[in-house]
Amino acid sequence: MNEFFPEVTKIDYQGSDSKDPLSFKHYNPNEKVLGKTMAEHLRFAVCYWHTFKGLGDDPFGGPSIIRNYNASNDPMQVAKDTMHAAFEFFTKLGVNFWCFHDRDIAPEADNLAETNKKLDEMVALAKKLQDDTGVKLLWGTTNAFSHRRFTAGASTNPSPAIFAYAASQVKKAMEITHELGGQGYVFWGGREGYSTLLNTDMKRELDHMGLFMNLAVDHKKKIGFQGDLFIEPKPKEPTKHQYDFDAGNCVAFLQKYGLTDHFKLNIEANHATLAGHTFQHELEYAVANDMLGSVDANRGDMLLGWDTDQFATNLYDSTLAMYTIIKGGGFTSGGLNFDAKLRRESVDPIDLFHAHIGAMDCFARGLKIAEKMIADGRLEQKLKQRYSGWDSGFGAETEAGKVDFEKLEQYTIENGEPELRSGRQEMLENILNEYIC
Amino acid sequence: MNEFFPEVTKIDYQGSDSKDPLSFKHYNPNEKVLGKTMAEHLRFAVCYWHTFKGLGDDPFGGPSIIRNYNASNDPMQVAKDTMHAAFEFFTKLGVNFWCFHDRDIAPEADNLAETNKKLDEMVALAKKLQDDTGVKLLWGTTNAFSHRRFTAGASTNPSPAIFAYAASQVKKAMEITHELGGQGYVFWGGREGYSTLLNTDMKRELDHMGLFMNLAVDHKKKIGFQGDLFIEPKPKEPTKHQYDFDAGNCVAFLQKYGLTDHFKLNIEANHATLAGHTFQHELEYAVANDMLGSVDANRGDMLLGWDTDQFATNLYDSTLAMYTIIKGGGFTSGGLNFDAKLRRESVDPIDLFHAHIGAMDCFARGLKIAEKMIADGRLEQKLKQRYSGWDSGFGAETEAGKVDFEKLEQYTIENGEPELRSGRQEMLENILNEYIC
Amino acid sequence: MNEFFPEVTKIDYQGSDSKDPLSFKHYNPNEKVLGKTMAEHLRFAVCYWHTFKGLGDDPFGGPSIIRNYNASNDPMQVAKDTMHAAFEFFTKLGVNFWCFHDRDIAPEADNLAETNKKLDEMVALAKKLQDDTGVKLLWGTTNAFSHRRFTAGASTNPSPAIFAYAASQVKKAMEITHELGGQGYVFWGGREGYSTLLNTDMKRELDHMGLFMNLAVDHKKKIGFQGDLFIEPKPKEPTKHQYDFDAGNCVAFLQKYGLTDHFKLNIEANHATLAGHTFQHELEYAVANDMLGSVDANRGDMLLGWDTDQFATNLYDSTLAMYTIIKGGGFTSGGLNFDAKLRRESVDPIDLFHAHIGAMDCFARGLKIAEKMIADGRLEQKLKQRYSGWDSGFGAETEAGKVDFEKLEQYTIENGEPELRSGRQEMLENILNEYIC
Amino acid sequence: MNEFFPEVTKIDYQGSDSKDPLSFKHYNPNEKVLGKTMAEHLRFAVCYWHTFKGLGDDPFGGPSIIRNYNASNDPMQVAKDTMHAAFEFFTKLGVNFWCFHDRDIAPEADNLAETNKKLDEMVALAKKLQDDTGVKLLWGTTNAFSHRRFTAGASTNPSPAIFAYAASQVKKAMEITHELGGQGYVFWGGREGYSTLLNTDMKRELDHMGLFMNLAVDHKKKIGFQGDLFIEPKPKEPTKHQYDFDAGNCVAFLQKYGLTDHFKLNIEANHATLAGHTFQHELEYAVANDMLGSVDANRGDMLLGWDTDQFATNLYDSTLAMYTIIKGGGFTSGGLNFDAKLRRESVDPIDLFHAHIGAMDCFARGLKIAEKMIADGRLEQKLKQRYSGWDSGFGAETEAGKVDFEKLEQYTIENGEPELRSGRQEMLENILNEYIC
Ligand SMILES: [Co+2]
Ligand SMILES: [Co+2]
Ligand SMILES: [Co+2]
Ligand SMILES: [Co+2]
Ligand SMILES: [Co+2]
Ligand SMILES: [Co+2]
Ligand SMILES: [Co+2]
Ligand SMILES: [Co+2]
Repeated sequence: MNEFFPEVTKIDYQGSDSKDPLSFKHYNPNEKVLGKTMAEHLRFAVCYWHTFKGLGDDPFGGPSIIRNYNASNDPMQVAKDTMHAAFEFFTKLGVNFWCFHDRDIAPEADNLAETNKKLDEMVALAKKLQDDTGVKLLWGTTNAFSHRRFTAGASTNPSPAIFAYAASQVKKAMEITHELGGQGYVFWGGREGYSTLLNTDMKRELDHMGLFMNLAVDHKKKIGFQGDLFIEPKPKEPTKHQYDFDAGNCVAFLQKYGLTDHFKLNIEANHATLAGHTFQHELEYAVANDMLGSVDANRGDMLLGWDTDQFATNLYDSTLAMYTIIKGGGFTSGGLNFDAKLRRESVDPIDLFHAHIGAMDCFARGLKIAEKMIADGRLEQKLKQRYSGWDSGFGAETEAGKVDFEKLEQYTIENGEPELRSGRQEMLENILNEYIC
Repeated sequence: MNEFFPEVTKIDYQGSDSKDPLSFKHYNPNEKVLGKTMAEHLRFAVCYWHTFKGLGDDPFGGPSIIRNYNASNDPMQVAKDTMHAAFEFFTKLGVNFWCFHDRDIAPEADNLAETNKKLDEMVALAKKLQDDTGVKLLWGTTNAFSHRRFTAGASTNPSPAIFAYAASQVKKAMEITHELGGQGYVFWGGREGYSTLLNTDMKRELDHMGLFMNLAVDHKKKIGFQGDLFIEPKPKEPTKHQYDFDAGNCVAFLQKYGLTDHFKLNIEANHATLAGHTFQHELEYAVANDMLGSVDANRGDMLLGWDTDQFATNLYDSTLAMYTIIKGGGFTSGGLNFDAKLRRESVDPIDLFHAHIGAMDCFARGLKIAEKMIADGRLEQKLKQRYSGWDSGFGAETEAGKVDFEKLEQYTIENGEPELRSGRQEMLENILNEYIC
Repeated sequence: MNEFFPEVTKIDYQGSDSKDPLSFKHYNPNEKVLGKTMAEHLRFAVCYWHTFKGLGDDPFGGPSIIRNYNASNDPMQVAKDTMHAAFEFFTKLGVNFWCFHDRDIAPEADNLAETNKKLDEMVALAKKLQDDTGVKLLWGTTNAFSHRRFTAGASTNPSPAIFAYAASQVKKAMEITHELGGQGYVFWGGREGYSTLLNTDMKRELDHMGLFMNLAVDHKKKIGFQGDLFIEPKPKEPTKHQYDFDAGNCVAFLQKYGLTDHFKLNIEANHATLAGHTFQHELEYAVANDMLGSVDANRGDMLLGWDTDQFATNLYDSTLAMYTIIKGGGFTSGGLNFDAKLRRESVDPIDLFHAHIGAMDCFARGLKIAEKMIADGRLEQKLKQRYSGWDSGFGAETEAGKVDFEKLEQYTIENGEPELRSGRQEMLENILNEYIC
Repeated sequence: MNEFFPEVTKIDYQGSDSKDPLSFKHYNPNEKVLGKTMAEHLRFAVCYWHTFKGLGDDPFGGPSIIRNYNASNDPMQVAKDTMHAAFEFFTKLGVNFWCFHDRDIAPEADNLAETNKKLDEMVALAKKLQDDTGVKLLWGTTNAFSHRRFTAGASTNPSPAIFAYAASQVKKAMEITHELGGQGYVFWGGREGYSTLLNTDMKRELDHMGLFMNLAVDHKKKIGFQGDLFIEPKPKEPTKHQYDFDAGNCVAFLQKYGLTDHFKLNIEANHATLAGHTFQHELEYAVANDMLGSVDANRGDMLLGWDTDQFATNLYDSTLAMYTIIKGGGFTSGGLNFDAKLRRESVDPIDLFHAHIGAMDCFARGLKIAEKMIADGRLEQKLKQRYSGWDSGFGAETEAGKVDFEKLEQYTIENGEPELRSGRQEMLENILNEYIC
């Protein structure tokens, strides 16, 4: 087998003084941080779609990127070459996990049965390559949004035949995820929304989506898949409005349709900001609702209104994300998946390495900074102190629900105007900056 | 008693040919539309805060507006003059409802007991004026966001003493709302959010808000208040992030804390768009979740990132809102409250009349257009047709949950590629434009 | 020759009572409005790229639309069939103008010379079809953004060879526009911006763009092209930042590089709102700077941060646009070009007709409403009155520049606090609503 | 004289290991960086309005902050106490400059003559305190936006009397700025825009603003003021639309009205992002147009649509800003003015110190990181290399304008498809992260 990335042997950790762009300056997989190795904390995954199938095209231009594994005219040969390239990349980069959609790894054929056959062939190859390399599957998913049949939705499609088609795809995708030992299965409802309310029966569509997810839970049990189910919020794009708008909207949906025991959230940084939240907000909200499952670790451009899916490079974001994730208990089945793509101008294979190295170093630094924050303890201490009124006496009694409005009024009458204490935001921001380095 | 608006006698319906800016061209309160009078459908309310207490100030300038009822140096005299002016305005304008915050109608005194006494005095006056004029209270609320004590929140404040203070205010505000025969009580969590996550314990704050709302339900029962409780979503402003971000986030919260039987939503147009949704989306979502309570009928500026609270004048918005509201069953206890303010440049009392007349005519036209849409039936028919696959056979069986993923796969294998049908958005938009006139 | 749109014969004006979706309800081409026919005022153009080359694909999905004129395997046959379909569409729809990019009408070949030959062949066919049908070319342009060579810009590319390539394309596109009797030539700098400042020399790129435009002016003169040159502002997308951000940024550029005598602006509605301006603002600004050339008449979605290029259906927008355009003198060489595309779900040929009919009726109504506004004169009169202080006396003297700061101070000292007059925004908005129908 | 900030003596540099929140960890005023002291590079200024006059109020709440210097009932005593507090603060903090609006430092009286007398009294005190402390005036300005008279604009007001009033204020403000040795004078057109186009004559307003600025230039010459004039772009807020939308719109205006020789720009970070640009973009654009004057060094919240005017704490922003400023030649008369305010929750005087210390350290780190970037040279080298095709041969000839479209076409025909080279964005972002520490 030829190499697809001959320009790179293996990315090594060289420490922060290295000027070699093809080395890790911070990610040292076996280095212990807060009692676990970096690799165990971060659980990096490379995504198949952007990294191997993305070619730089955008709404105003065709592909800018030419990859050698796409050279063949035979789609299955392309699929195989791509998978070899992918595992070569995983290995040279040194990540432990990958993620994929069914349609990323195998071409669609004339009908579903044929398509599934091709998929099985590719799954067999993936399994072999997983065994050969030790790289594991973080999660699988189906692509029920790119094909024209899903133009008006998958589980929320006005047509029951398309609902059935989507179910068939999810069924198969769950099965191959199970076959490949995937630790989770993701639902991203790319077209589960609407373009205009003029042609949309929102209630009926939501009920169908609720039904669909319940059937998915049933199938998961049936096949004995032990991995977690994740739902990935996104507010819009490609649809005008997506039902899984943000973490809060997903939690509302999951509660309404009795699904909270079976689902957790896959929080994507760029989707958070498109919905008007910070990345950290969505993580905190998920933790507060016991719903944090996995993370699509990318970044958006705050001045652009679409999903730019850029590689994470911002240390503030990676630090605060890791701080929240670790305080929330860390990952179990989830991880940090690089749902990120090269800029259209970055046309060389080597750019793929730069991009992933940068993102891995960014989160490794975030992890180490979070460790410092936790060790130093000033932020946590100030937080505890701010709420300490609730820890005893009247506060504790109130928090325990042993009051009513009359007692609370009586307290107020007796105690008069409460003291107003500074929130100290500026000082806390300065302390955060002390850690960033 | 002097008149405060001598420039106006009574706003009458004159029909669409009138060029008198002080007449209704469309709102004809007793005209029947779809079996009820316009007044019964629309249930217009004037808000006290913007209309009588707002003086045109903004973050870069002090008041631009001078009102004669503010002339006295005695705050209680100002309060009384303002209330007389208000009921004069309600009457001359011809609305049936008003809305208020406790602190709008009476000044805050040195302590809560004194403040409540002043409030009682003003409530007595309000009750008399209600009786004199027949104007009713749509809903009351407390202002737990303007005073510096609520800087870091009311029910979500880090201090239990401030939680207690907020409870005391809500208690009293619920009681006076009850006393005035209010049909609802609103919670808008103006400061129930955060400025930075660095000093915020989100989980604890959400739990406190859940507790607070449950205590409010208890108190409502205790005093025998039969009106509805409404929660008003808003994503941000004045806080960086408000927990009641949008309808979906509110529904998630209400479900989590066991409150869905006791609360409905008060949807504000401008808050919808600040959260990234259309006004109609939030209404549809509320209807789909059986949560539509009342409406703050204003408009935002889609190019401005703050709550401009402008008077509704857009016929598309009022039409689609009324279409959704009526299809959702119409208002019971709720109504259309003009949570809207004059532009800073509109410094004359007469501007208040123009503004309300315009908004009332806008919704009256919206109602009449919605009536045409319903009578004509093309939109509804096309909608039903689009989902008709679910009404019988395989679709109906699926919708009833009598399938599993295996049956759905089998159906797909047998039936092959589903047909893709046009969503016809452009034609539907053209049909909508046919009605707009 | 087969018909490509057999489902439609000819779209006729049937008046506003018609419920035939394939008729004009308002656009009556020969009806006189303000002294000219509707057709003369509106100068509608169909764009080639979206209407014939667009297939519903978006960043998350491939084509949803299948067109019969794309059936051949021979690219030149596809090009010819498409052009026949296009002129059939123009004729059946009843527009007088079309617009195109070079690469819309002919495929790119192995090298520029070959490409230009194919282009010439298609231009000959276009010329014949123009002659046969009487349809004229509103403007031509080059596509210097889709091909991978332009990934980092055309005239602002870091490579002089690509600058030269772009020049070669513009040269040819200007020549064929001239050949086809085009009334204008447009520059849209799709990639003339940057993805990151880290690799960008902004000053040098702006200087190159200035040079390029001056060379274009030279070539225009050389070939005797009498049409106007238009620059089309857009703030971003596909680039992170485009130099032609908005009308103001374009005017700054044109002034700096000595180009104001040779260029006017092509204002697109959706680009206006992406830049944070209303459509009307950009039109007014262009008029105020004597720079209004032509219009891309579409609409954006104010809640979506990308160029949705939807068909115009909003009567407020079309009314205010036509009001500004007519007060600005109306079109000379420019017109209303439908730079708009079907929604992905609108997969049928008939949707193309609905979309264009709706947009044409929308602007026809806007024109007729603007006529009413002008005839009625209330808005104009109130505007004049608001500024009437400048028409005589101290105001006129000041406006004429016959003052200095000392005289102005003296006036202020002598005259004391100036009167503050209401801006009457709410009343003016109500008056606008009187016209909308 | 009593101290107003007794909790602080003097903020000292203690180095990055210090955990004392009241010390500089990076700003070491006399430390040499790139040949000048930090103080000479950064030229920090404290703004009077936010820091001393701001009290935490927002559109939904009154003041949250209580300051001891506001204790008196006599406005002039408050003014004097505030000024003593201000210079105490400047001195204890260790900044060399301050900035003010006329109305910040003295109360408005019954008429302009009286107001100016009070102003003179305060200017005399300011001059004495400047002499006593060595603190200098970076720039002065007038407040022609807060008073109700300016509701509809200052120089763009429909009333010539208000134009005159604004001129009178600017005249006086320029004179006192001159008297105090100010190094610049700023125009921020807070109300120079519109709320609705329905009542706005944009062309006439722009002409008036052009006239006004020319009269200001005349007056500057007349009084012999040698400082620079700066215009500060902002897109909106408080107006719906401000004419000085961004740097580009300002440059268009200045060119059109013949003002480019007399004005430079005062770029504010938060205004840049409100306009849809990065802070660095606006700086680069100003440098590219030889228009960079001074900087309002604050930060916005990218998820909030209003001017949050937060203290700068983001190292990426301060680094890239300093990199651009230094490459652009550094400041001459301008500097870094902290146009920033405490969060409403930060109610203590000590919060003012934390906030300024954090921002000063942030820019000091930015400066030191920029020094590293320049010393290391990798970014600059890669930038030069990217454009090196223009430095000789065909590129140089083209850049010199020795070509026309024909020659460029000939080059293209001869040379064929140009090479496409990676923009290397991901690698450059990684390199930037190497410097951040
Ligand atoms: Co994702
Ligand atoms: Co994404
Ligand atoms: Co409201
Ligand atoms: Co509001
Ligand atoms: Co366009
Ligand atoms: Co567009
Ligand atoms: Co500023
Ligand atoms: Co600002």
